[in-house]
Amino acid sequence: EVNFDPKEHQHLRYNPLRDSWVLVSAHRMKRPWAGQVEKPPEEHIPRYDQRNPLCPRNTRANGEVNPDYESTYIFENDFPALQPNAPGPGSDQHPLFQCKAARGVCKVMCFHPWSDVTLPLMKKEEVVKVIDKWADIVEELGATYPWVQIFENKGAMMGCSNPHPHCQVWASNFVPNEPALSDRCQRAYYEKHGEPLLLQYAKQEAGKQERVVVETSDWLAVVPYWATWPYQTLLLPRRHILRINDLTTEEREGLADIMKRLLTKYDNLFEVSFPYSMGWHGAPTGPHLKEDNSHWQLHAHYYPPLLRSATVKKFMVGYEMLAQEQRDLTPEQAAEKLRNLPEKHYKTRET
Amino acid sequence: EVNFDPKEHQHLRYNPLRDSWVLVSAHRMKRPWAGQVEKPPEEHIPRYDQRNPLCPRNTRANGEVNPDYESTYIFENDFPALQPNAPGPGSDQHPLFQCKAARGVCKVMCFHPWSDVTLPLMKKEEVVKVIDKWADIVEELGATYPWVQIFENKGAMMGCSNPHPHCQVWASNFVPNEPALSDRCQRAYYEKHGEPLLLQYAKQEAGKQERVVVETSDWLAVVPYWATWPYQTLLLPRRHILRINDLTTEEREGLADIMKRLLTKYDNLFEVSFPYSMGWHGAPTGPHLKEDNSHWQLHAHYYPPLLRSATVKKFMVGYEMLAQEQRDLTPEQAAEKLRNLPEKHYKTRET
Ligand SMILES: O=P(O)(O)O[C@H]1O[C@H](CO)[C@@H](O)[C@H](O)[C@H]1O
Ligand SMILES: O=P(O)(O)O[C@H]1O[C@H](CO)[C@@H](O)[C@H](O)[C@H]1O
Repeated sequence: EVNFDPKEHQHLRYNPLRDSWVLVSAHRMKRPWAGQVEKPPEEHIPRYDQRNPLCPRNTRANGEVNPDYESTYIFENDFPALQPNAPGPGSDQHPLFQCKAARGVCKVMCFHPWSDVTLPLMKKEEVVKVIDKWADIVEELGATYPWVQIFENKGAMMGCSNPHPHCQVWASNFVPNEPALSDRCQRAYYEKHGEPLLLQYAKQEAGKQERVVVETSDWLAVVPYWATWPYQTLLLPRRHILRINDLTTEEREGLADIMKRLLTKYDNLFEVSFPYSMGWHGAPTGPHLKEDNSHWQLHAHYYPPLLRSATVKKFMVGYEMLAQEQRDLTPEQAAEKLRNLPEKHYKTRET
Repeated sequence: EVNFDPKEHQHLRYNPLRDSWVLVSAHRMKRPWAGQVEKPPEEHIPRYDQRNPLCPRNTRANGEVNPDYESTYIFENDFPALQPNAPGPGSDQHPLFQCKAARGVCKVMCFHPWSDVTLPLMKKEEVVKVIDKWADIVEELGATYPWVQIFENKGAMMGCSNPHPHCQVWASNFVPNEPALSDRCQRAYYEKHGEPLLLQYAKQEAGKQERVVVETSDWLAVVPYWATWPYQTLLLPRRHILRINDLTTEEREGLADIMKRLLTKYDNLFEVSFPYSMGWHGAPTGPHLKEDNSHWQLHAHYYPPLLRSATVKKFMVGYEMLAQEQRDLTPEQAAEKLRNLPEKHYKTRET
């Protein structure tokens, strides 16, 4: 009888935030890779480029001129996927041809006036400014919109078409699929166990330590037990917090600190500006502000695609799209790798 | 008052197979693209390459030698994500750290002895042989396994690491997330409306015609009303059929015909060997063979990533991963484009 070893024996792990399973087949990493190799990201980005619509003082697609901003800067997306006043379809519909109105706003937020920095290379105070702006925009748009999605696509590999450090904010008159699912899962857990799912989870992970990447007194970054992307992480507060605008000054400083440390490790992993998509999930807003949302816990997801090197990513394709997500190393292996990396950024190291 | 125009006004559409919504923002196609450009696929692939482990007579990673096969050829994946005898984890588990045994087999199926052909360029009789083999393998592995996933990753962009025409078959001791969700949705629809969801849907689409790409007396290929990928299609039989091995000889010939026509249009769209991931969903097998699965209807999903040209794909990233899928042209626009393309393959056209 062979004993079960998660690094050798494929198994399924349960994702309690999505009520679904992930296939972990760590032994697949042994297979050689002869497939597509990505272009490594551009390493020499000019601090200021007069053709870049995200830089201070430049003119954007719609003719507007950016101010000479010195910290963060937020403006309406010139090609928004959501607009505030779109007319809606009629309501008489066949069950297989259902359509609904979608309204909202899309904003772009620059993190810094310089194009050649990223969050891990920015000063801690500068990252705090980004967090403050995130909190402000959730407060502002969340006053009426039920969902405010803050997300960052970093790197050309993740569909980002501009190297200037920035994120996006899309607010909508509906709670989208992913947070709606997460809401249902967190609510069911809370009803059954009397404690918020992610608060309980953070405590467990802080105790176990094996999937922790970095921690501070207020925050924890872990490769979740159910991670699907190779080096996926989940950023969690230790205290029960519903929304990003509920963070105290101290917690914002702690968040800036843990973000810088986590993202430095990411960059150091393959010594490349690490591509990812990330985003915040917190309790729904607008009409939901008046409801009891005790089952919610604020958190950020980081989904980075790289698997083997700076140029070989994980493809979520055939089996993953049609059947089930599959990963090629265990979350514990990924966490260990990240945990052991230096916290000094490779670009600032003396040579 | 402006009237609702799906090409101009963003809206949500309901996917009844996944019980979720897609954001359609067709006006986003107007935005210029300055982001990542993909390498076009290699157009000159040798018919036989002695280093390619998928070609006849060659030796594979595990030392086995391929026969001098003349039609299809199936063998065990040398780096399988699922193995038949992996030991399972213990059963005493915390609700946030749930793990299950996963067992199965992974096979690779070559479509043809030549590396320089693809399904649309193969003879109709040769494609029928592929369909027969699909039916055989579902019959064989489905005798015991609850799920047999046939899927094809085509093109380097879709993580395919070998240009030789082939697909994969992964059979598992569990019904994976995607078919499990589709099963629940089809069952609920059947219970409510007394007719299989996809049988009803095919009838509706055949009547409406606006999303039909190609049709034969037995089959229909449509861009589904809820398509998420730009040129996604759904291949449906007109008769109620549970599994691919239930197809008659005539239906297999019709399927070879419609597949060749659909895939020729795909290749003709940007005059490139069109990348995609595709796969079959039919009623579950193994222990489920004895159950009533009348709510099921056999179908294939095609998920192609290209959006604007042979080198610019749709990125399913930040908003899509964290909130909701979003598309940049309407399914009707995509269907019309595909429908109007010639059915003669660009590579066989006289110049
Ligand atoms: O088995 P292959 O073709 O080497 O691998 C490909 O398909 C698999 C199943 O969709 C994916 O898990 C891999 O990421 C992809 O590269
Ligand atoms: O708005 P951007 O950055 O141009 O676009 C990027 O992010 C969007 C939101 O995730 C995606 O829909 C696009 O496919 C991607 O290219």
